[in-house]
Amino acid sequence: MNQRSPGETDATPPVLAVVGVGLIGGSFAAALRRSGRVGRVLGVGRNRKSMQEAIELGLVDAEASLEEAAAQADIILLAVPVGATHSVLETMLPALNANAVITDAGSTKADVVEAARLALGERIGQFVPGHPIAGAEKTGPSAASADLYEGRTVILTPLDENDAAIRRRVTQLWEACGARVVVMEPQTHDIVLASVSHVPHFLSSVYMLQVASAANSDVRMELAGSGFRDFTRIAAGSPEIWRDIFLANRDAILSELAEVRASLDQAEQALRAADGSQLHDFLERAALARRFWGSRSRL
Amino acid sequence: MNQRSPGETDATPPVLAVVGVGLIGGSFAAALRRSGRVGRVLGVGRNRKSMQEAIELGLVDAEASLEEAAAQADIILLAVPVGATHSVLETMLPALNANAVITDAGSTKADVVEAARLALGERIGQFVPGHPIAGAEKTGPSAASADLYEGRTVILTPLDENDAAIRRRVTQLWEACGARVVVMEPQTHDIVLASVSHVPHFLSSVYMLQVASAANSDVRMELAGSGFRDFTRIAAGSPEIWRDIFLANRDAILSELAEVRASLDQAEQALRAADGSQLHDFLERAALARRFWGSRSRL
Repeated sequence: MNQRSPGETDATPPVLAVVGVGLIGGSFAAALRRSGRVGRVLGVGRNRKSMQEAIELGLVDAEASLEEAAAQADIILLAVPVGATHSVLETMLPALNANAVITDAGSTKADVVEAARLALGERIGQFVPGHPIAGAEKTGPSAASADLYEGRTVILTPLDENDAAIRRRVTQLWEACGARVVVMEPQTHDIVLASVSHVPHFLSSVYMLQVASAANSDVRMELAGSGFRDFTRIAAGSPEIWRDIFLANRDAILSELAEVRASLDQAEQALRAADGSQLHDFLERAALARRFWGSRSRL
Repeated sequence: MNQRSPGETDATPPVLAVVGVGLIGGSFAAALRRSGRVGRVLGVGRNRKSMQEAIELGLVDAEASLEEAAAQADIILLAVPVGATHSVLETMLPALNANAVITDAGSTKADVVEAARLALGERIGQFVPGHPIAGAEKTGPSAASADLYEGRTVILTPLDENDAAIRRRVTQLWEACGARVVVMEPQTHDIVLASVSHVPHFLSSVYMLQVASAANSDVRMELAGSGFRDFTRIAAGSPEIWRDIFLANRDAILSELAEVRASLDQAEQALRAADGSQLHDFLERAALARRFWGSRSRL
């Protein structure tokens, strides 16, 4: 169906294929369409209801199979669970345009890069791994918005095989969505995200379950206040999504948890010794760091 | 200055003395005055600026020393750091009216009860320990409001020496502030508060400091999102206040931290073993508990 040969340029606007038509994929499509960077948008997905919604909302022009999307698209976004990366790319590879660029939105990167290398082989240069730091209290196409990435950060972890042109192309796409692009190594990305996102979720869930499992959990819950509310908010997140994230980024999370435990050991030792000055020092350094972060964050 | 003898009743409205004229004491005074339950309000405090503000705002009618307040007051609220309980009560005891009732707002109770017993001796029956679960992002008299306790919970931990009349009197005072009164043992209070308030603060601060101390903390902080924001919000709290709380409730906090560690060990073991089904089970139980709490909480 695609009339263009590899490398040939063409005046018609690029075709975008979004694999996974939920919040992340739908918002990418809406933002790029608004910016005029893409023309026709194809959606790939197994959830009938989401696909129907995405089409009704105008996020997607038509449904396509992975093979059809590979054959027609100039730009491909994978917005699927990271564990699905290998099979999706393997299925797309035979029909993939030589001039197509693929990026993704997976929340881990080292494992995604490994899966992509295995699936794409010598075509790996067409894949520029990414991770938009956006979302995700609401999910699904109905939550999608052309503004989702406005002012948010997108991390790209380009590969040695990505040439300058394709790096620039993916950067410009995310910037057209209103995002700020930050570049780092896949391993650095995974450690940083383990630290600021995955470990807090792990700890919040561990803590929440401990309170809920106590013999007098009813009275505990009844007296829990706004500190408890904020500290445990993330523990309400999807068990499926977070299980997959934890498994995908296991090494980095375990390594960061070990650091948190070392920090906990120290603080607990100060408490056990009733060392008020050491406790104050620890609390003051934490409070100053948090206040400084709060003063600079746009959140 | 006080013309009434012990036990004598009197048609003039009760005199309230608030020791510590910040958010907690100022709001108690404002709420009781609005309800018509008290007449003249005396303020005791060492911070010149707070006292001046409390008087200008009309929270307090006049400044008094501890001895003057003890001699004149029918109702006394201690809103001071829990570590000051003993010396405040010891100073007030010689001038204390026999018909006066004392309550407090300290965030720990077993240590406060012990300090009060030591200071008041056989007058301990006049003291009904309490803890309003309210506050405290803002502090000081300028943040005080007659509405602070509206719909909030106040825990009372009455003593065997408190007779039914004095228990009822203190309950009615807090209810007149709009609060819901819950009664429990001092030790239960301390465990419950350790669980739902002190441990989250401890963990949030430990985590915050660990992130801020990492070699690449800059890039971590830059990529921290809304989950991080909520999980660490409480870590910005006052190091002085929280050091005192941790020291005052040390045993209960250490005991709860041990429970959290046991829960962490289990979850970490599932992650290390890449046991997706156990991870999912743990995350699902935590998520369901948090969602249930959220559906019932008014926060």
